[in-house]
Amino acid sequence: MNNKYVYLFKEGNAQMRNLLGGKGANLAEMTNIGLPVPQGFTVTTEACNKFYVDGEAITDEVKDQIYAALKELETMNDKKFGDNSNPLLVSVRSGARASMPGMMDTILNLGLTDQSVEGLAKVTHNERFAYDSYRRFIQMFGDVAMGIEKYQFDAIFDKVKEENGANQDTDLTAEDLKQVIKGYKALYKREIGEDFPQDPMKQLMLAIQAVFASWNNARAIIYRRLNDIPGDWGTAVNVQTMVFGNMGDDSGTGVAFTRNPANGDKALFGEYLINAQGEDVVAGIRTPQPIATLGEAMPAVYKQFVETAETLEKHYKDMQDMEFTIEKGKLYMLQTRNGKRTAAAAIKVAVDLVSEGLLTKEEALMKVEPKQLDQLLHPAFEDKALKAAKPIAKGLPASPGAATGKIYFYAAEAVEAAASGEKVILVRLETSPEDIEGMNAAEGILTARGGMTSHAAVVARGMGKCCVAGCSDIQVEEKKKQFAVGEKVYKEGDYISLDGTSGNIYGEQIATVPPQLSGDFGTIMEWADEVRTLKVRTNADTPRDAAQAVEFGAEGIGLCRTEHMFFEEDRIPAVREMILVKDEVQRRKALAKLLPMQKSDFIGIYKAMGGLPVTVRLLDPPLHEFLPHEEKDIEALAKEMNVSVVELKKTVDDLKEFNPMLGHRGCRLAVTYPEIAEMQTRAIIEAAIEVAKDGLNIVPEIMIPLIGHVKELKYVKDVVVKTADEVIKEAGIDMKYMVGTMIEIPRAALTADEIATEAEFFSFGTNDLTQMGFGFSRDDAGKFLNDYYKKSILESDPFARIDQDGIGKLVEMAAKLGKQTRPDIKLGICGEHGGDPSSIEFCHRVGLNYVSCSPFRVPIARLAAAHATILNK
Amino acid sequence: MNNKYVYLFKEGNAQMRNLLGGKGANLAEMTNIGLPVPQGFTVTTEACNKFYVDGEAITDEVKDQIYAALKELETMNDKKFGDNSNPLLVSVRSGARASMPGMMDTILNLGLTDQSVEGLAKVTHNERFAYDSYRRFIQMFGDVAMGIEKYQFDAIFDKVKEENGANQDTDLTAEDLKQVIKGYKALYKREIGEDFPQDPMKQLMLAIQAVFASWNNARAIIYRRLNDIPGDWGTAVNVQTMVFGNMGDDSGTGVAFTRNPANGDKALFGEYLINAQGEDVVAGIRTPQPIATLGEAMPAVYKQFVETAETLEKHYKDMQDMEFTIEKGKLYMLQTRNGKRTAAAAIKVAVDLVSEGLLTKEEALMKVEPKQLDQLLHPAFEDKALKAAKPIAKGLPASPGAATGKIYFYAAEAVEAAASGEKVILVRLETSPEDIEGMNAAEGILTARGGMTSHAAVVARGMGKCCVAGCSDIQVEEKKKQFAVGEKVYKEGDYISLDGTSGNIYGEQIATVPPQLSGDFGTIMEWADEVRTLKVRTNADTPRDAAQAVEFGAEGIGLCRTEHMFFEEDRIPAVREMILVKDEVQRRKALAKLLPMQKSDFIGIYKAMGGLPVTVRLLDPPLHEFLPHEEKDIEALAKEMNVSVVELKKTVDDLKEFNPMLGHRGCRLAVTYPEIAEMQTRAIIEAAIEVAKDGLNIVPEIMIPLIGHVKELKYVKDVVVKTADEVIKEAGIDMKYMVGTMIEIPRAALTADEIATEAEFFSFGTNDLTQMGFGFSRDDAGKFLNDYYKKSILESDPFARIDQDGIGKLVEMAAKLGKQTRPDIKLGICGEHGGDPSSIEFCHRVGLNYVSCSPFRVPIARLAAAHATILNK
Repeated sequence: MNNKYVYLFKEGNAQMRNLLGGKGANLAEMTNIGLPVPQGFTVTTEACNKFYVDGEAITDEVKDQIYAALKELETMNDKKFGDNSNPLLVSVRSGARASMPGMMDTILNLGLTDQSVEGLAKVTHNERFAYDSYRRFIQMFGDVAMGIEKYQFDAIFDKVKEENGANQDTDLTAEDLKQVIKGYKALYKREIGEDFPQDPMKQLMLAIQAVFASWNNARAIIYRRLNDIPGDWGTAVNVQTMVFGNMGDDSGTGVAFTRNPANGDKALFGEYLINAQGEDVVAGIRTPQPIATLGEAMPAVYKQFVETAETLEKHYKDMQDMEFTIEKGKLYMLQTRNGKRTAAAAIKVAVDLVSEGLLTKEEALMKVEPKQLDQLLHPAFEDKALKAAKPIAKGLPASPGAATGKIYFYAAEAVEAAASGEKVILVRLETSPEDIEGMNAAEGILTARGGMTSHAAVVARGMGKCCVAGCSDIQVEEKKKQFAVGEKVYKEGDYISLDGTSGNIYGEQIATVPPQLSGDFGTIMEWADEVRTLKVRTNADTPRDAAQAVEFGAEGIGLCRTEHMFFEEDRIPAVREMILVKDEVQRRKALAKLLPMQKSDFIGIYKAMGGLPVTVRLLDPPLHEFLPHEEKDIEALAKEMNVSVVELKKTVDDLKEFNPMLGHRGCRLAVTYPEIAEMQTRAIIEAAIEVAKDGLNIVPEIMIPLIGHVKELKYVKDVVVKTADEVIKEAGIDMKYMVGTMIEIPRAALTADEIATEAEFFSFGTNDLTQMGFGFSRDDAGKFLNDYYKKSILESDPFARIDQDGIGKLVEMAAKLGKQTRPDIKLGICGEHGGDPSSIEFCHRVGLNYVSCSPFRVPIARLAAAHATILNK
Repeated sequence: MNNKYVYLFKEGNAQMRNLLGGKGANLAEMTNIGLPVPQGFTVTTEACNKFYVDGEAITDEVKDQIYAALKELETMNDKKFGDNSNPLLVSVRSGARASMPGMMDTILNLGLTDQSVEGLAKVTHNERFAYDSYRRFIQMFGDVAMGIEKYQFDAIFDKVKEENGANQDTDLTAEDLKQVIKGYKALYKREIGEDFPQDPMKQLMLAIQAVFASWNNARAIIYRRLNDIPGDWGTAVNVQTMVFGNMGDDSGTGVAFTRNPANGDKALFGEYLINAQGEDVVAGIRTPQPIATLGEAMPAVYKQFVETAETLEKHYKDMQDMEFTIEKGKLYMLQTRNGKRTAAAAIKVAVDLVSEGLLTKEEALMKVEPKQLDQLLHPAFEDKALKAAKPIAKGLPASPGAATGKIYFYAAEAVEAAASGEKVILVRLETSPEDIEGMNAAEGILTARGGMTSHAAVVARGMGKCCVAGCSDIQVEEKKKQFAVGEKVYKEGDYISLDGTSGNIYGEQIATVPPQLSGDFGTIMEWADEVRTLKVRTNADTPRDAAQAVEFGAEGIGLCRTEHMFFEEDRIPAVREMILVKDEVQRRKALAKLLPMQKSDFIGIYKAMGGLPVTVRLLDPPLHEFLPHEEKDIEALAKEMNVSVVELKKTVDDLKEFNPMLGHRGCRLAVTYPEIAEMQTRAIIEAAIEVAKDGLNIVPEIMIPLIGHVKELKYVKDVVVKTADEVIKEAGIDMKYMVGTMIEIPRAALTADEIATEAEFFSFGTNDLTQMGFGFSRDDAGKFLNDYYKKSILESDPFARIDQDGIGKLVEMAAKLGKQTRPDIKLGICGEHGGDPSSIEFCHRVGLNYVSCSPFRVPIARLAAAHATILNK
């Protein structure tokens, strides 16, 4: 039995997304509900996977099905592919399950040849149109499918324009265009080593092959990694009958959203261009008209489009992002999909769709991407600071938010600067898929060209980055690494600020304030809390962070790192003294100085949490982290501590480790110096007793880090329990506390049944578990992980998204073994993964009780936890 | 129901070793076969464990059983414990399952008090004997049970001797001894804060408690770690009726072996002292007489002893080590156990016992400890060098072998010197259990005092260390850190050499040669090979090592580390060039220089192995290991490589890693620089083709290190296979090869089912698996592991003996998952554990096909593999 690799639009539907890709499935669905869709067919994602299995070749089995589908298309259109008098032309577009800007996008007008272009001229009575279509086709095919660099085509085009004194593209005549085509074909032959193919079927197969190959180009791989898209999904290819928006002033093309993708307002939002093909709109080269003006230009078409938009939104129960073309007064729908939107818009749309009765609350929750909420949780400009600032220019408010940073003009440099800790604003004439990484690294993006649906705008909204687009007030000179506003020049490294909500640009740094969360945001969070079963805690080391997290809905602290307190200026001398002394008696003296400080830290945190549970981790990092390493700092410290420089250097050297990650840290410190654990336990319990006097009854959770063996835990736990019980007895009160452990060493996960005999709770430290389980030093892996992504060995950063197949197996095993020994054991996660939605779903599935993440990720985690519940019903 | 914690000797037997300890079980057995054993009872190992559970206290339940047993002992002896006229006296001795010199050993004469000593004097008509017994008791009790330092007793004793003008101990009269006792009691009160106990029952309970407590003293913990004895075994306590070897010239005490423990000869071997207690023999203070002379001194007793020895050897089917006492012409057996022996003796005894029909071959194999074979595998003195050397002194040949090194006089200093890479000879007046670690670190041990059964001799034989004992030719001055032979003084750091077989001592370094293996050794190895199912390979990087391993019976190379070849002087410039160049083209040029060298390496190794399988591991260490790090070396290299110092420094800095263990190494190098793997593959395959011309048909096994993910393996394997197939095609021949992987990253073990889809074999790299699984950097763990041993968190070094509960679980899991995917997958181990007997048993049990270890461990592994088969039948 043969597999079916090709589906006509009328054979598919929206449910077949995995097989047909998003674009193909929706074209099929629109066809089935009777909307005006130029017909075509979809080559499936399975064909793409087969293409790779077959050594990057399209086999005869697939080719035959393409031929058959094309035959049907010819019948439907009553035109022949490759016909010289009235040729069937098609577009070829990629379409994966998820929209992927990294891939080959579109080739239009495929099927044109030296012969059929003449037929097209005749049948349309428009020679200029026909040759313009042909030159566009050669250029797109050469650039997009065959990899000939675009500037080479541009050079030929510009030369012909110059030679013929043409200012605008439209000034070129059919004859001029023939000259362009001649140049293009010569370029093609030079670059590819073959004539530009005159067999439309060959054109088609090469184009399909190019789409499949684009699935694994570098940009697509990066995009997949940033967006958690698996490499084995593959892409489908859509072959669709061409319609033409460039056939005169009764023709046009546009894109529109059913609601405003920036703020969620219920009103058509979009742009169109008269007498243009789709690429002209998206590329941001000509500045398009707002969609509403179409009502004046073509009232009937506009009415039909408005009705179609309503139909689609109701049908899909979601805001739609549509592409359309008007060919000689007739509307054609080229695409519809759930529209990308800002977090604010996503929330408003979701809440509105529930009010409108289109969605249930759970369905509405699924319409908001947890990661997106990040946009709403980041600082805005401080009101006063903003008022004091004067904008230097204004562009389109393409993606909301506030951003301050140093300007960079090239993506690679932006990435580098951001990696070294700078806040970066990427400034470009216009952006292209090559800039994705730079955009991701930047705080905000500013472009001089392009509209609200330009590449920069769409991508920035998807990323939740602040973006001001199409700012014609600025003159960008990328090569000089500067832009000018009037006389004033801004150079690489200068500070500017962007307001993505107003479109204002400021030539200075502006202070920012924490975000204010809107009413709809609260509604969504409330719904999420009703649904989710996974608790959300926060990682917080200071009362300020703790308070922020509580405001964001944290239900406790999952990780309070005590070492952060040790680094503070008033403590570090006592910490260093503790490290440098030679015996236990002196060490206890130094620790006694630290006790009241630690105690007051905990009191502050307990108060900020208002009685919610707090997990405190005992000292974790290697002691050398607290000592200076530079010559002059060592000298200064030696003086301060009244020891000789030689002696101090020896101590510093003795503490150096080959692999500090796997060295003398975590519970190993408590084994060597139990008195440190004693002091910390005393501080934790005494603080709890103190706040109990104010009526705050908390149950401190004392967490012992880096446990690998139950006997380690037993040893340190005995120290903790002895101290805690003593302190409680001294106070003469009754107080509960818990003692548990991090599970962050593979051996601990493997022997979690034994560990659970001593631990009352587990908190998975998936950062270290990933480091040790994968054998990747987080600080060093950057050197080789890029090669891993490039070579498709890894698809995502295992430190950002938990590796479910490997490290996840350890987590699952430990959760199971832990419960086996202690059915009521409390299980949580406090690694970076605790704030990552896909990892949160994993945590839900393996039965953890809570995730803990940084304060600003708490709302994300709450929504992700709700998603997890819904997805696993 | 009460548990039984106390057994009379007549209630036990040799099978009850776990409960009664070795000593107790054998005393019971001897009682039951009718040998003359002073009666007594054993407090069980379970009572010891209970002692710890009960907070280091002996509960009434146990006490009551001790009282009852003591009552029975009184009846049997017709004497009363604590009786003032004819007191029952007992010895109290520890006795674990395995003999443990680290623990409290013996207290004699317990039951004596100020009153009963007078009764003893009367009933023995020997006042001097009675008071000597009492002073010995106070001293032993104070020292051994209560921890009063021995020198304090010695000082009192010496003062009395001086005051009374006594030269020898025996010159002291009863009155003098009363004076000593007075001093001892005053010392006891001062140190302990209580009078010396006059209640014999209190004495007994304190002594039993001290034995239990000694189970966890520092020395015992170290001994257990060195000898793989679990901490939860506990020790039993034997309470035995005293008999006296110091009641005159018709009394005596001695120790003897049924065969010669140094060479295995079948002849009684031992020593005795007339008119002495046991401690005098073992302590090595007086020099005892050879056992054979007892035939002249006391013919009847000697005859009885010879018969008893024969009975015991036949009964236990093994060479026995016996302690006896003669009290007024009557023989008493105080202990028997399987005797410790040198490897040579173990082998000879085992082979002889088979010839004598006492043992089967398999039983005989179990009589030889694999680890012990090490002794036979180490170098002896080079004949010529030895002949040229003149001995400076001669002592007792206490433990065979040859040792050359620098002399040290204190255990701690010996340990330190050995740790810094020196070869060390430990020289002591006499050794004590405190010296164990120093002895372990030393190449050989030299003592001035003590006989063939002195502490130094027994322990050295157990460790397989060369030892010359009781060398009265030398004058040792420990405090001055020197010894003298006549006029000539040897100071700390001077070289000497010891011949443990002749007893000769040389005042110089002497060259050594590899060992010659004896005929019995061959027999044992042959029997082991008949029994074992686990194959034994070797880790070898040079033809010389490979040839040595083959001689020792290796059945292949399990790990050939290619980087070792990279370090050689003629290659390192090309290696550095490869690292320093900027692009692939230049890198390939540098690699081309390395190719012929690598190829010739492999040819040499293949030839040495004579067609046995060879597993070659691709480059593993991080590249910075090949670059210099010192300022002046960098400058030299920069000049040599014709690059600027600044640039070279930057490269060196760029390659530095925070945690190199988890950094850019192993297969990660091959992912970044596939051309390195290509070059190595080419060298491996071309070499195999080359030797095939000489009729050596080998199947190279190419091993890819540090795999964590199946896609990594797939990527590198594709490079290897493509290259290998090309080379084979070029040669126009048919040649098989295999591609497999190390399993050394936890994630690889966890996903071994996936890894096995690409790997034809797994080799467990348990060194790295332990590092990552435990989170212990091997280079840094030394800093805290001592605390772990001290605090009983770990009982053995997980890098020496595989941690079966944790890391072993990963190995087991990976073996199972691997076989699930690929039933015929070849499984081996190439970490250090491959030569460790207990780890080898584990490997057998989890179904590995082979172990691979260093050449000198191959015979050990062969025997251990046979043990594993027998133990798991």
